[in-house]
Amino acid sequence: MSRYWSSIVSKLDPYVPGEQPKVSNLIKLNTNENPYGPSPAVLKVLHDEATDVLRLYPDPNADALRSAIADYYQIQPTQVFVGNGSDEVLAHTFQALLKHKQPILFPDITYSFYPVYCGLYQVEYVTVPLTNTFQIDWQDYIRPNGGIIFPNPNAPTGCGLPLSTITKLLEKNTESVVVVDEAYIDFGGESAVSLIQQFPNLLVIQTLSKSRSLAGLRVGFALGNEKLIEALERIKNSFNSYPLGRLAIVGAVAAMRDRHYFEETCKKIITTRERLAENLTGLGFEVLPSQANFLFVRHSKKDASQLSQALRRHSVIVRHFARERIDQFLRITVGTDQECDRLVAVLKTVVG
Amino acid sequence: MSRYWSSIVSKLDPYVPGEQPKVSNLIKLNTNENPYGPSPAVLKVLHDEATDVLRLYPDPNADALRSAIADYYQIQPTQVFVGNGSDEVLAHTFQALLKHKQPILFPDITYSFYPVYCGLYQVEYVTVPLTNTFQIDWQDYIRPNGGIIFPNPNAPTGCGLPLSTITKLLEKNTESVVVVDEAYIDFGGESAVSLIQQFPNLLVIQTLSKSRSLAGLRVGFALGNEKLIEALERIKNSFNSYPLGRLAIVGAVAAMRDRHYFEETCKKIITTRERLAENLTGLGFEVLPSQANFLFVRHSKKDASQLSQALRRHSVIVRHFARERIDQFLRITVGTDQECDRLVAVLKTVVG
Repeated sequence: MSRYWSSIVSKLDPYVPGEQPKVSNLIKLNTNENPYGPSPAVLKVLHDEATDVLRLYPDPNADALRSAIADYYQIQPTQVFVGNGSDEVLAHTFQALLKHKQPILFPDITYSFYPVYCGLYQVEYVTVPLTNTFQIDWQDYIRPNGGIIFPNPNAPTGCGLPLSTITKLLEKNTESVVVVDEAYIDFGGESAVSLIQQFPNLLVIQTLSKSRSLAGLRVGFALGNEKLIEALERIKNSFNSYPLGRLAIVGAVAAMRDRHYFEETCKKIITTRERLAENLTGLGFEVLPSQANFLFVRHSKKDASQLSQALRRHSVIVRHFARERIDQFLRITVGTDQECDRLVAVLKTVVG
Repeated sequence: MSRYWSSIVSKLDPYVPGEQPKVSNLIKLNTNENPYGPSPAVLKVLHDEATDVLRLYPDPNADALRSAIADYYQIQPTQVFVGNGSDEVLAHTFQALLKHKQPILFPDITYSFYPVYCGLYQVEYVTVPLTNTFQIDWQDYIRPNGGIIFPNPNAPTGCGLPLSTITKLLEKNTESVVVVDEAYIDFGGESAVSLIQQFPNLLVIQTLSKSRSLAGLRVGFALGNEKLIEALERIKNSFNSYPLGRLAIVGAVAAMRDRHYFEETCKKIITTRERLAENLTGLGFEVLPSQANFLFVRHSKKDASQLSQALRRHSVIVRHFARERIDQFLRITVGTDQECDRLVAVLKTVVG
């Protein structure tokens, strides 16, 4: 505390991201990074752009990137908003589209940044419990609200909702914005992007950090009706004219265009995920059905926190959340086959 | 307007950045970019980092960069906050340190993003007129306030305040935060960084966009007492865990370390600025005394807006602000000697 702080600062309960260890030789399965590097086409354009041109400001509107994303999804560039990682896009969304008189709704178990944004912008919220099987029941959201937000697939459970369910929710909830946070959608989920033409209150948010292997570059985006995008633009242009640098823009454009590399790496991760799920089940773990690049698992006999520490001693890091309802779960990022085999081998000695 | 917008969005009057033209062959003297490219050491580390490592998140605390900046200024890393360009650092500062019951103070003619931030965070403000010679008179700020912010040197005038004046202001204003926005300090001004140990309410903000030729990379920072930095960290960690990507971090570290290249390019720009000022004076322009990498000038007989348009027809872009008190001025970025010679040659035909 300090007398120089605004009242907001004192009340904040900031987000704590997963550990980014500074030692190497760890098998890092804790922050859902892609085990494969970015497309070679991305690395090429980054090299080409790392020149004297960096003395110049980037395009404040990042038009090239908005067009590349619009091309990918067959929508208009005016239906695309881009930002410095999907966390920034989410922050602007809370301030621009989710701050109303009524509280917003999100699951009790979900991305733990949502209540933090609410603190930052004084957005009232109510959490809606997941079912006993850790699923979102769309009918629980049919009640007066200032907005609805959930990840699909959900984090940290990995469980997805089919498009038909999201359609039903949108048909019943027309008075407030519905944000579908699709950070992990490319690993087997059904994207709601196809619904943005039909529902003017739908905003879909995606990131290049996971399925496009660019967590280190910081690019995220939102897709929706032009009026929703305009609201985000107005906030962005009152916050930072140039959120994306030149390298982020050219790298992201190349990533969106290399569809083949993207599809191949996603496929590999899905294959490894299914194999890992089978191996973990064999070791006595309950594995929630995942459409993401991670598994959410609990063991019938071993304490999750102790398992996490045991793995750490064997140089494998996974994520454990000491939170109600999920404190017996571990969230394990799907790495390469080799990394997952190592994880399974260590677990065998620990739970065996 | 849209019923889905929060009330803040509708009221915003967003900032309009200087034009970033998409055609080449223009002499671009409109957004105060450095005419020289970044240090070769920066380009080297960017190439070295553009690898598979981009699949991994960056260090959320950017410790390497905070250390490099602390080393440069001989302060502690805990006295350093880093962000995605100084505009983001400024935004967080308005929310964290300038939002109080009393209105904040800033000059009537200054960086036009300040009132925009006030709109974004509902910060009350009062503008304090510059003197008739477009100078900040520090005594005008000795009055009850919720905070004080001004650029030094000021934008778009280029006029600087000596350190002795800033010290006097800080001695008299101890109850609120004083932010000195030093975007242009390295072109001949006196930095207030040496005062942060003495005044716990002083925050100094700098950028790598101008003197370190990295407008395209997006890195800015704030220096001050640990408690002020902690407030900014709390906001940042409630907004975006990873505002700086891997390329931004390594590039900025290299830029801070290459002191020789930095000093040489700053010197060249100062020399060109003085030569350009002399040439413009010879053409009948009044030239405000500048400590920045731009000149703020008006002609005794020619209308500024028309001059700007005439320059544009000759492929030279400068910035004209259609704002009270300064609508007869042009802001001209100091380019290379060659670019400035071309500007002067065109102006000779226009005003001659």
